[in-house]
Amino acid sequence: MSVTHPKGFRAAGVAAGLKENKPDIALVVNDGPDATAAGVFTGNRVKAAPVLWSQQVLKGGVVRAVILNSGGANACTGPAGFQDTHATAEHTAAALRGGAKPLLLGAGDVAVCSTGLIGERLPMDKLLPGVEAAVRGLSRDGGPAAAEAIMTTDTVSKTAVVEGTGWSVGGMIKGAGMLAPGLATMLCVLTTDAVAGPDALDTALRHATRVTLDRVDSDGAMSTNDTVLLLASGASGIEPTTEELAEAVTELLRQLSRKLIADAEGATKEVAIAVTGALTEDDAVEAGRAVARNNLVKTALFGNDPNWGRILAAVGTTQATFEPDRLDVAVNGVWVCKGGAAAEDRSKVDLTGRDVEIHINLNAGGAEATIWTNDLSHAYVHENSAYSS
Amino acid sequence: MSVTHPKGFRAAGVAAGLKENKPDIALVVNDGPDATAAGVFTGNRVKAAPVLWSQQVLKGGVVRAVILNSGGANACTGPAGFQDTHATAEHTAAALRGGAKPLLLGAGDVAVCSTGLIGERLPMDKLLPGVEAAVRGLSRDGGPAAAEAIMTTDTVSKTAVVEGTGWSVGGMIKGAGMLAPGLATMLCVLTTDAVAGPDALDTALRHATRVTLDRVDSDGAMSTNDTVLLLASGASGIEPTTEELAEAVTELLRQLSRKLIADAEGATKEVAIAVTGALTEDDAVEAGRAVARNNLVKTALFGNDPNWGRILAAVGTTQATFEPDRLDVAVNGVWVCKGGAAAEDRSKVDLTGRDVEIHINLNAGGAEATIWTNDLSHAYVHENSAYSS
Repeated sequence: MSVTHPKGFRAAGVAAGLKENKPDIALVVNDGPDATAAGVFTGNRVKAAPVLWSQQVLKGGVVRAVILNSGGANACTGPAGFQDTHATAEHTAAALRGGAKPLLLGAGDVAVCSTGLIGERLPMDKLLPGVEAAVRGLSRDGGPAAAEAIMTTDTVSKTAVVEGTGWSVGGMIKGAGMLAPGLATMLCVLTTDAVAGPDALDTALRHATRVTLDRVDSDGAMSTNDTVLLLASGASGIEPTTEELAEAVTELLRQLSRKLIADAEGATKEVAIAVTGALTEDDAVEAGRAVARNNLVKTALFGNDPNWGRILAAVGTTQATFEPDRLDVAVNGVWVCKGGAAAEDRSKVDLTGRDVEIHINLNAGGAEATIWTNDLSHAYVHENSAYSS
Repeated sequence: MSVTHPKGFRAAGVAAGLKENKPDIALVVNDGPDATAAGVFTGNRVKAAPVLWSQQVLKGGVVRAVILNSGGANACTGPAGFQDTHATAEHTAAALRGGAKPLLLGAGDVAVCSTGLIGERLPMDKLLPGVEAAVRGLSRDGGPAAAEAIMTTDTVSKTAVVEGTGWSVGGMIKGAGMLAPGLATMLCVLTTDAVAGPDALDTALRHATRVTLDRVDSDGAMSTNDTVLLLASGASGIEPTTEELAEAVTELLRQLSRKLIADAEGATKEVAIAVTGALTEDDAVEAGRAVARNNLVKTALFGNDPNWGRILAAVGTTQATFEPDRLDVAVNGVWVCKGGAAAEDRSKVDLTGRDVEIHINLNAGGAEATIWTNDLSHAYVHENSAYSS
């Protein structure tokens, strides 16, 4: 049930005509008693209007509702685009104040998320009536419908739930392309019925995104709209420690991250790049990311070719601490490279399956990190040359 | 006539059986009277054995011969691979000492370059006899044969000549994939009959590579073997100023760079990304490179889609100085984006031709730079998933 699994939340997903015959507006409402929240946003300096808006909303640590649309990113739309976001928040707040179960809230309590084509204005004449329909459609089991309404090139909706002791976290995520660092490109709303202040939520969310979504790097392209929100209703009456909360949110985002990678545009492989023996965790992340973004590695994987030379060449572009003649590389368990040179026979490597594990030992220390990526396929080229987003 | 156009040089290209029925060994010899030289090498920390060797040779500022092979990169081959390079240099020096026109030189005067598959030892039983054949084949018009022998996935050999006043520079280059910064992946030998000391050659070569080869970024992947050498024979008896030399070498490398981009693996577009209005030249290079490496921009170009939103999103990932709402973007002369938002109708952009010019004005200063790249096509995926290099 995703975002509506924890107590205190309602959600809806409706079709407003922004896309053809598909749901395109989602709404998540926090009925409380609390309305604390935290958010993490794209590191891209070109930020969409809804990101600029929601960053302001989150500063207060309170979010009572999140209105999301697919069918248009409202990015690179200038001051007029920002006014559209503002109007969307105002309209959502007004509809919720006048709804079947009136809520006391203003536009400043409403976060806004958009996804779709960059550079075009949203059709507000369709969007605003859609907001009203979403308010009318709110229900305690509306999570799955909301998750469907935020899909773009996703082939499946993506939700997950993690249980605490007497409380839980639930979430929905969308994203299939432009998956890169500083958040894989996505919109993501997480909810919990735990009792937690904004600071605890912020700590938990930042820890969780750092080791999950920030380590998904499908195609190296960073979006203008990435938003991850965590809302707490306090409806369970239970206050976990920040560590317990962080652990649950991390597990939830780990599951959602895997679903992003599994559904990445045109991918035929889900690739885990585990870097061990690093001097620092940052070194491990840098080396893993360089491999994840290397088009020659990615095309080789598409061709079922355990081309470890390209992996070494990618590691060699980084500033991580290592000696070239101490690098070891295994592909699906076969150590094809030891000490920077050929070792086990590469023909022993079986790359016919969908899951690939690349293990790189820098032999320089005790830190490690895993980066998730995909191969680079004909279908990726096709989808991204044909789909204007 | 490429490297044999300037006076004082002989060259050869022969087939030694490293590749099937194709020339695979090239030799360039400087007959003097001078034998000054400069070199620039890959920034990759995983360096092939011939790069490590040639870096040592160049420290003395003297190179009397360059022996090059395709059919094997001799990278990631450990100490044994380095011994192979050393033996190749020794064998070349010995053959030249005992040749028809005996030269006085040692292994330390011979630079070595290799290109091809990473991670495999060279077949020395074929390579060493090939070196002898190359020495026997040396001639004053051997430049074109040498240029053919260094090709890998190149579809054409690449040479150019620039005339000074009474002296000239000539060159050959190979490279069709793995074209990225810190030198587009290639082997390149330049010759001149000008009189020039090692310092003047070094200054001229570093200036020229910085504004030409370093700004070619076809696929963001940096090679283990990149080598650019500039040899001077002094046979013209004329000593140009360092500025005149730098200008000629820059023009030569500009022509050779364009030939790399024109022949890049699977490319259907040759893309110039001109960044103007930058606060610094570094900012312009960083912004241009971020766009050049963005797979979503590259696939859009393959699909003839003037997707300026993706261009802005790529610029937004950089640390360059700019305000998002002051960015202007033109594609093939049509200003589709002004002030960070949509401007002229994108349907006016004609992307049907092979040449594409993207103009990005950061509106932050007076510096500028142009980066050259290609689109990302089905053929790129095919070549790089099928060809193990």
